[in-house]
Amino acid sequence: MKKDDLIALDKRDPLAQKRDAFDIPEGMIYLDGNSLGVLPKSVKTRVSEVVETQWGQDLISSWNAHDWIDLPQKVGEKIARLIGAAPGQTVCCDSISVNLFKLLSAAISIQKRRGEVSRKTILSVSDNFPTDLYIAQGLESLLGDDRCQLKTVTDDTLADNIDETVAVLMLTHVNFRSGEISDMRAITELAHEKGVVVIWDLAHSAGALPLALDECNVDFAVGCGYKYLNGGPGAPAFVYVAKHHHGNLDQPLSGWMGHASPFAFDNNYQPAHGITQFLSGTPSIIAMSALDAALDVFDDVDMNEIRHKSLGLTNALRELIETADELNDLVAAFPHDECKRGSQVAYRHPHAYAICQALIKEGVVADFRAPDILRLGVTPLYTRYEDVWICVEKLRQIIGNKRFLQPEFAMRNKVT
Amino acid sequence: MKKDDLIALDKRDPLAQKRDAFDIPEGMIYLDGNSLGVLPKSVKTRVSEVVETQWGQDLISSWNAHDWIDLPQKVGEKIARLIGAAPGQTVCCDSISVNLFKLLSAAISIQKRRGEVSRKTILSVSDNFPTDLYIAQGLESLLGDDRCQLKTVTDDTLADNIDETVAVLMLTHVNFRSGEISDMRAITELAHEKGVVVIWDLAHSAGALPLALDECNVDFAVGCGYKYLNGGPGAPAFVYVAKHHHGNLDQPLSGWMGHASPFAFDNNYQPAHGITQFLSGTPSIIAMSALDAALDVFDDVDMNEIRHKSLGLTNALRELIETADELNDLVAAFPHDECKRGSQVAYRHPHAYAICQALIKEGVVADFRAPDILRLGVTPLYTRYEDVWICVEKLRQIIGNKRFLQPEFAMRNKVT
Repeated sequence: MKKDDLIALDKRDPLAQKRDAFDIPEGMIYLDGNSLGVLPKSVKTRVSEVVETQWGQDLISSWNAHDWIDLPQKVGEKIARLIGAAPGQTVCCDSISVNLFKLLSAAISIQKRRGEVSRKTILSVSDNFPTDLYIAQGLESLLGDDRCQLKTVTDDTLADNIDETVAVLMLTHVNFRSGEISDMRAITELAHEKGVVVIWDLAHSAGALPLALDECNVDFAVGCGYKYLNGGPGAPAFVYVAKHHHGNLDQPLSGWMGHASPFAFDNNYQPAHGITQFLSGTPSIIAMSALDAALDVFDDVDMNEIRHKSLGLTNALRELIETADELNDLVAAFPHDECKRGSQVAYRHPHAYAICQALIKEGVVADFRAPDILRLGVTPLYTRYEDVWICVEKLRQIIGNKRFLQPEFAMRNKVT
Repeated sequence: MKKDDLIALDKRDPLAQKRDAFDIPEGMIYLDGNSLGVLPKSVKTRVSEVVETQWGQDLISSWNAHDWIDLPQKVGEKIARLIGAAPGQTVCCDSISVNLFKLLSAAISIQKRRGEVSRKTILSVSDNFPTDLYIAQGLESLLGDDRCQLKTVTDDTLADNIDETVAVLMLTHVNFRSGEISDMRAITELAHEKGVVVIWDLAHSAGALPLALDECNVDFAVGCGYKYLNGGPGAPAFVYVAKHHHGNLDQPLSGWMGHASPFAFDNNYQPAHGITQFLSGTPSIIAMSALDAALDVFDDVDMNEIRHKSLGLTNALRELIETADELNDLVAAFPHDECKRGSQVAYRHPHAYAICQALIKEGVVADFRAPDILRLGVTPLYTRYEDVWICVEKLRQIIGNKRFLQPEFAMRNKVT
């Protein structure tokens, strides 16, 4: 595969025009959209409109005049289309961590209503994203281990551990280190056979690949607004709850935005119908409006096109890296099998951190994940095939010349 | 009191220049800063800098390069100065609702560590802000009433109900309808004598009047970023936890931002030292930066000046309203005693809703609170004495001519 082949792929790419919808910093190859998506141009106009006109001029009347009050549902429905959810099941709010707490508690409330009080286990895998496990630990500590116990197992023993002691199975659909996709349909089905409620974390899936939550009969899901949905740093997250569970569960962060009549100022909490029950306090309208505008980029996008290009990009990365003699020390840590591969590749290297820093200095923004993973994410809406070429060329120079050994690239505290 | 007297007060007002720091809509008298504060001009520049440069150009590197990672603590410290809190005890995050859940749970964890497991009651008053009660109901429902019971009492029986069955007392410092200030020092002291942990909700206090949380020996507090702190619609809230409780409690929304080493991706939750333990998921950097910029308006402001002007404004409102013959039907529903009066006045009227709508149509933005309260909030940073005059003149016309009876002002669903 040569540079010209990749440039030719860009010319034929039906998503190529989408790149113009984003502000890509001059000269930067950005392969970290799975940490923080790039700024869509439409967000700039929208944020300044929300700040200067809606807040600045129309002030409190904007809750009605500019439909601030319906924004969580409106944004939720835009996301619903991307995750295979029929209307009325998705809402935008809070962070993934806070939303997971709502869903774990809701799952336990479902088991309680079913009379299944002996199911105490929150089952997950040990390489789940840590914050998901932390939230389960928080709930466990609050409820006490006579009522709730987190159990983490390895991926290969997961199926054997789904049994009648389990209340809820909490998994991340695409692993944040390896990018490996779990089989949502099969695992959900297996869990249901055993009476287990399932929560899927879509942080590395939503906006990156086609999803079919309704079809897979998923109970609950959460996902992230600031990765592939490009909603900005710390953008609000989302919650999906399948319709058949509506009205049959409790969620404990029962703030006024989830009340049936928030402005009646009634003293007793009465959950709103449907997915609105999952709202809690007043959301940031500026932050949620940014995500709302960012989602418009997806308006005319077919998620199958995104997937097709994503695999084109990761296959090109793989081929170029794995055929370069200088890069023999990079050990693939992601699935060869396309069906199991998210929108990233990941390679192990003892100096992964330093290599990542050297790449960044050369204008190729990659990511490091402890202990030794170099992660290269591709975002089909703005990543070009040519970017893949440039990235691998830089990698060959940095590793071939051992440039990563320069002291400036040594490990310090890092934030992503 | 005549119009000229009020204009003269404006001329002598040491805070008068502060009004220039805000974008006040042309011709609007805004008396609803206790619902949503007015836009500080500095926020516009800051938000566009965060969106276009920090996010747009510097992308993921901004977590370090622009100190996004420290923003919750930085904003927390700016608020700390306004609420009488020494450094290291205040952090900006999530919503009041979500933060109350953390604090109620933390209070229960303190009682548990003290061996006081028989204390099951969350005590509050029945006219507390509803969402505070809803959150307590959420926790009660999650834990079960054998472990946690919300008990609401009337204000006049509160003291008698603070006893050894109570785990935590949850009160709002300034009532959202009447604006009545509770005696933070005396109630906190009484609660402590009975072994009760106290949470104060400062939604209508922070930025509106001097507070002395440390001096009053307060355990916990939450407060709002979008009222008197002018952080924008749905701005993030804040949490205060007194230093002597740090390390001696659990908070169950244990997301990664509250972990001792969030980027170690350790599988076990280990709370960060100090107030950082109260962070949960990734915060919206755009929303929190807006609040950060808004707080700069307070930089050179003495909260005693704010209080002095606030009382000047509410006294002027009271005098003008209560001496106008046309306004005899307005029944004061706020404390005459200045020491007990927050930064608002409130009057009952059977047609309060319609009067409020008619005022808004005349350019005076007031607020209605069910069932029959007209609420006029004053924000000393931008409310002028002259505004008070204009407001009362409009009220006299609207009520004197019974203009509020026009069908256009009839009750519909309203959002604030």
